[in-house]
Amino acid sequence: MPTADVDPAGSTGDGRLEVVALAGIPEIRPGDDLAGELGDALERSAGLLPLRPDDVLVVTQKIVSKAEGAIVDLTSIEPRPEAVAFAQRWDRDARQVEVVLREARRVVRMANGVLITETSHGFICANGGVDASNVGPDSGQIVTLLPVDPDASAAWIRRAIEARFGVDVPVIVSDSFGRPWRWGIVDVAIGVSGLAPLEDLRGVADHDGRVMRSTVRAVADEIASAAELAFGKTTARPAALVRGANPPRAEASMRDGLMSPEFDLFR
Amino acid sequence: MPTADVDPAGSTGDGRLEVVALAGIPEIRPGDDLAGELGDALERSAGLLPLRPDDVLVVTQKIVSKAEGAIVDLTSIEPRPEAVAFAQRWDRDARQVEVVLREARRVVRMANGVLITETSHGFICANGGVDASNVGPDSGQIVTLLPVDPDASAAWIRRAIEARFGVDVPVIVSDSFGRPWRWGIVDVAIGVSGLAPLEDLRGVADHDGRVMRSTVRAVADEIASAAELAFGKTTARPAALVRGANPPRAEASMRDGLMSPEFDLFR
Repeated sequence: MPTADVDPAGSTGDGRLEVVALAGIPEIRPGDDLAGELGDALERSAGLLPLRPDDVLVVTQKIVSKAEGAIVDLTSIEPRPEAVAFAQRWDRDARQVEVVLREARRVVRMANGVLITETSHGFICANGGVDASNVGPDSGQIVTLLPVDPDASAAWIRRAIEARFGVDVPVIVSDSFGRPWRWGIVDVAIGVSGLAPLEDLRGVADHDGRVMRSTVRAVADEIASAAELAFGKTTARPAALVRGANPPRAEASMRDGLMSPEFDLFR
Repeated sequence: MPTADVDPAGSTGDGRLEVVALAGIPEIRPGDDLAGELGDALERSAGLLPLRPDDVLVVTQKIVSKAEGAIVDLTSIEPRPEAVAFAQRWDRDARQVEVVLREARRVVRMANGVLITETSHGFICANGGVDASNVGPDSGQIVTLLPVDPDASAAWIRRAIEARFGVDVPVIVSDSFGRPWRWGIVDVAIGVSGLAPLEDLRGVADHDGRVMRSTVRAVADEIASAAELAFGKTTARPAALVRGANPPRAEASMRDGLMSPEFDLFR
């Protein structure tokens, strides 16, 4: 990571962050032009254009998965006995449990009605990111999966936004994850394009020129969380522009932000 | 949680979040008037006054701990043999390991050079929140502890800000925590006053009036993360005002956001 842009006087950036949730994005269905809808929403939002290279566009997993067709109709699913038993014991939908198990590389915990798996991407999360859909009145039968390659999803959105507006804006695909030890969900990054998930400040001199920082900031995850705050209480705003976070620009992958097993103390 | 303020049209709030880091706060030492410094910084920052009741003031643990005298001089610490052995094996300061163990209610993991404990407050984090200080040239001997009661810390700051500006603004005391499975730190809330750490949207109708949300948002943690993004690359801005997040107002405790042992799958 370059450190030349760290001002020892502590005036890097102007210390201001602005997050604008994008409204008016319709329900997305497989094959819909999601990037076009995002671009239209950017044009409708007061004060967002022209885009700036230090903006970050955050797009939630659910509309990305829908656009890419990463959905499953539960009526097509035949659950295995293990899924049926778990679902009966904990009052869950056995077909959804089956989909979670199919998406899993590894079951991390399956207890107390909670099913935590490691997905094919390496994410460890509840229900493997499989989520009930919000599409339409009979949506109870449809679940969304995580995108097959969320970095690639972020990349095609980034390219489409650059083609339309002429500015190369980093893109994060975000999802809502629970955490051990704390209640509630926070949004984190599951795919990135054009920015690094981490900013390594270890060895960077702090503002008094003596103290060295010893921190690796999970900037992509924090940007995803800031975006979620602007989404607010509904799912009507499934994307946001974050201005002022200044994450490190890089051709990177969200895999860079995941711990490898030898460092993982909570397998 | 009241749901009357949830607009079914999805227009709750205006979907905009602004975060302004407070600059010019000097090094804080035990007994310093931290609330006075925060107030001065709010007055210096363009556009922040008048404060609004839906603002949230985020203050980092380190300056709160310093103001409250929650610091330890390592030269006064005699490490136990277990601390010496762990420190020698993993190239750490045995006295700091000793302080972490003294602050711990329980050791969660002690491996790979990583020491994860449960603090007296119930937080599970690396090194029990014990952190090398940034105070002065000989700061290598001083570590900060977590505040004894971070909710109480948030409360006295909140009262002082209200006394000065006449607006009751919720306060979060934040700290940087690592997470299982992902590299890097994100800021989370360790103390709250005037807001609930969680917003329970389960059963709230979504924007199309049919779909029910099934989410509990960890709003205090997300607000802490958004503030950290505005702090930027240095510790010169140890507090921020977050405008537009609209967390639920409540007389609450950060303990409400922590899982009790019977739900904890990662003891």
